[in-house]
Amino acid sequence: MRFPALALAASALAFVNPVAAKPAKPDPVPPADTAWRILEDLTTEIGPRIAGSDREAAARDWAVARLKALGFSNPRIEPFTLRGFVRGAETARILAPYPQPLAITALGYSVPTPAGGIEAELVYFASLDALKAAPERSLKGKIAFIDHAMKANQDGSAYGPSGAVRRQGPRIASQKGALAVVIRSVGTDSHRNPHTGNTAFGDATPIPAGAVSLPDAEQIARIAAKGQPVRLALTLTGYPQDNMPSGNVLAELPGRDPGLPPVLVACHLDSWDLGTGAFDDAAGCAIVTAAALRAQQGGKPLRTIRVLWAGSEEIGVFGGAAYGQAHAGEPHALAMESDFGADRVYGLRTSFARTNPALRDRLVAALAPMGVVDYGADARGGADIGAIVEAQKLPVIDLMQDGTRYFDLHHTPDDTLDKVDRAQFEQNVAVWAATLKIVANEARPLAGAKQD
Amino acid sequence: MRFPALALAASALAFVNPVAAKPAKPDPVPPADTAWRILEDLTTEIGPRIAGSDREAAARDWAVARLKALGFSNPRIEPFTLRGFVRGAETARILAPYPQPLAITALGYSVPTPAGGIEAELVYFASLDALKAAPERSLKGKIAFIDHAMKANQDGSAYGPSGAVRRQGPRIASQKGALAVVIRSVGTDSHRNPHTGNTAFGDATPIPAGAVSLPDAEQIARIAAKGQPVRLALTLTGYPQDNMPSGNVLAELPGRDPGLPPVLVACHLDSWDLGTGAFDDAAGCAIVTAAALRAQQGGKPLRTIRVLWAGSEEIGVFGGAAYGQAHAGEPHALAMESDFGADRVYGLRTSFARTNPALRDRLVAALAPMGVVDYGADARGGADIGAIVEAQKLPVIDLMQDGTRYFDLHHTPDDTLDKVDRAQFEQNVAVWAATLKIVANEARPLAGAKQD
Repeated sequence: MRFPALALAASALAFVNPVAAKPAKPDPVPPADTAWRILEDLTTEIGPRIAGSDREAAARDWAVARLKALGFSNPRIEPFTLRGFVRGAETARILAPYPQPLAITALGYSVPTPAGGIEAELVYFASLDALKAAPERSLKGKIAFIDHAMKANQDGSAYGPSGAVRRQGPRIASQKGALAVVIRSVGTDSHRNPHTGNTAFGDATPIPAGAVSLPDAEQIARIAAKGQPVRLALTLTGYPQDNMPSGNVLAELPGRDPGLPPVLVACHLDSWDLGTGAFDDAAGCAIVTAAALRAQQGGKPLRTIRVLWAGSEEIGVFGGAAYGQAHAGEPHALAMESDFGADRVYGLRTSFARTNPALRDRLVAALAPMGVVDYGADARGGADIGAIVEAQKLPVIDLMQDGTRYFDLHHTPDDTLDKVDRAQFEQNVAVWAATLKIVANEARPLAGAKQD
Repeated sequence: MRFPALALAASALAFVNPVAAKPAKPDPVPPADTAWRILEDLTTEIGPRIAGSDREAAARDWAVARLKALGFSNPRIEPFTLRGFVRGAETARILAPYPQPLAITALGYSVPTPAGGIEAELVYFASLDALKAAPERSLKGKIAFIDHAMKANQDGSAYGPSGAVRRQGPRIASQKGALAVVIRSVGTDSHRNPHTGNTAFGDATPIPAGAVSLPDAEQIARIAAKGQPVRLALTLTGYPQDNMPSGNVLAELPGRDPGLPPVLVACHLDSWDLGTGAFDDAAGCAIVTAAALRAQQGGKPLRTIRVLWAGSEEIGVFGGAAYGQAHAGEPHALAMESDFGADRVYGLRTSFARTNPALRDRLVAALAPMGVVDYGADARGGADIGAIVEAQKLPVIDLMQDGTRYFDLHHTPDDTLDKVDRAQFEQNVAVWAATLKIVANEARPLAGAKQD
């Protein structure tokens, strides 16, 4: 692992001039419900806040005001634009052999059907591989249905392979001539709430693309299994739109040594529009922000902590890319992100377990009383810190959240405040605060001297 | 308890001419998955089947064909008409202070808003009693919101008091001058799926009436608690419609003594339109029908078992009333109904515990191995047998189902096949079959000699 020259220079300075010894003015203790208030107020006062919308803009203003009220320095918006998605009417109905409505939602970057919809034969595929095996042009004039199932697991690792149906399925269906595509939602619940999420067509012709809820997918499977041709009526009038306004919100809690590179803690401010984005990702913003404040207790840390409430994560990680570009020239000490709901942290992964085992060991010892155990060196970071981590080869820490029920709620109307288990949510804040207390007080480069 | 003269005469005949001794031709054993096939096929091949609709008509034809295929005698439709409800567009949106959409559905017998909807101030009431306490005419030009909560319980007894918000709330809001009314769904889940159900206005002016999901109700409560005026945009274009066609489906498994009054087992064929009516009440039809067939095993019972798949239960119990009227002149031995989902039977209530304790004891002994215990003499029957039970003062047996999660699903889009726990569902069939085997082989009047 390489470490940016500028960051090394700045942290070397810290050894020459040990500001760690300077007495710090104790900060006022933030209220115990700081995290909950961020979570509840953002989801209540703003609600759904899809990337590029006026509600996302309202959320940015809300965030700046809240961060200011919480005592953060210089809360500010860094604007950018994105290719977004404007949701429209969305209905689906089986016409034959057994007429009945389906619960459907459009995928991001779907293109619209005519306002009156389309009617076509549905072709059933049990999996993404089954679709891939379909002969070229075999879907001409037809609607592909991909019934690719996902299983819940604690670490969310099923999202890679299972999410491929949403990320690749529509493109592949288009390449085989499909008029439109419907997928089984990428999710693990059993409610009539479809899961949205973005898709991409690459060089293929964009086609209308939607997801039905899991009970509806099972219903389609049962109907298709009866062996008669299945006809579907589909209306999805949402469409992609270029040059929509978005932005990142940044603010800092200055450390005692302004010359040291800051610790970057991130979340994303935008949500999908179907729910109020409590799990995804108001909880993350609440956790990292309240933890940054709590890490000030008992003495301001050495390093500045910067919070990044990224915009437009859901539709293409535009906020993370914009941050990476805008801040490429600034050194960072470490980056972390909370974007996997609000259930308890059970594991710790660091990118520096081999190069700085002493720091890893201190973290493991500090987090063990909260039920967090070491999961090794394969830390991955998160979407919004991805660009800056990649550009600067930053050290990262993953505080691994229990994702067993994350994909019950992910990108659905059901992602609402009532789903948050407050005890688990507060455990996140405590784990993050303990972690930040350690890393923000570390004067030396966090990745250590030994480089892989 | 009185007993109809004709029934007494017929069963007295049975003692004179003991057909019980006549050797019966053994019936073929019905497949073990008979109940599941009814449940799965009705919910898949018909799906939603609201009273008065063409889908309910399709369900009647489906039912006749299925009962015939299962070997029932004389499956037939007894038509009637009803005042039904035609669902329309339904949207709600908070305009101020925090703009966001709400998940809403119209209540049955709501009258329509203009197609473009209405906008008005929302007035928050924490309970039905709070609404009742509002001054007369205080709601003029406003939309009443009633945030009346329901708790889950095993026997469903909370539905009486909690359901009052839906049955009475709209009328009371209208009487106080409200432009429209929105209630917290009568339910116990935490999903963005509102619960529909019928309301009634009596002599009050009908107004548009809807229910929001429970997470949305909590959101409205949080927003109202902020103290600023709440403005709502509401569009509910559904409307009541007179003279819609419906009907009951009846069929019999003849007993060895056609002179004895039959045992009536009922369920309802219609469902609300939001889901496929798996719990409410395809499961009930599957249970009573499969159990009636299973009770034929080991020898045809003495008494005929008649199945009644009632139409239009959800909107005013029109099917039950029609049955009561059409069959008022025929004696019945006993009536039972299954209409509380598909979870396990845990209790037995009989109306004849005091007048025929010997029969009650035989039932208790037979059901105990299946985990069913005696719950006394307060048997209530069910909606669709209500008219005939009342008219003829019939004995009834309640096989009490665990309703802990019934009101999670009741009248929502989530009432779908995947919610049925097959083991519990099959326990219902076994309990019903054992019960029918006993009562249908009882030659004497089931209420016994001792009358209360």
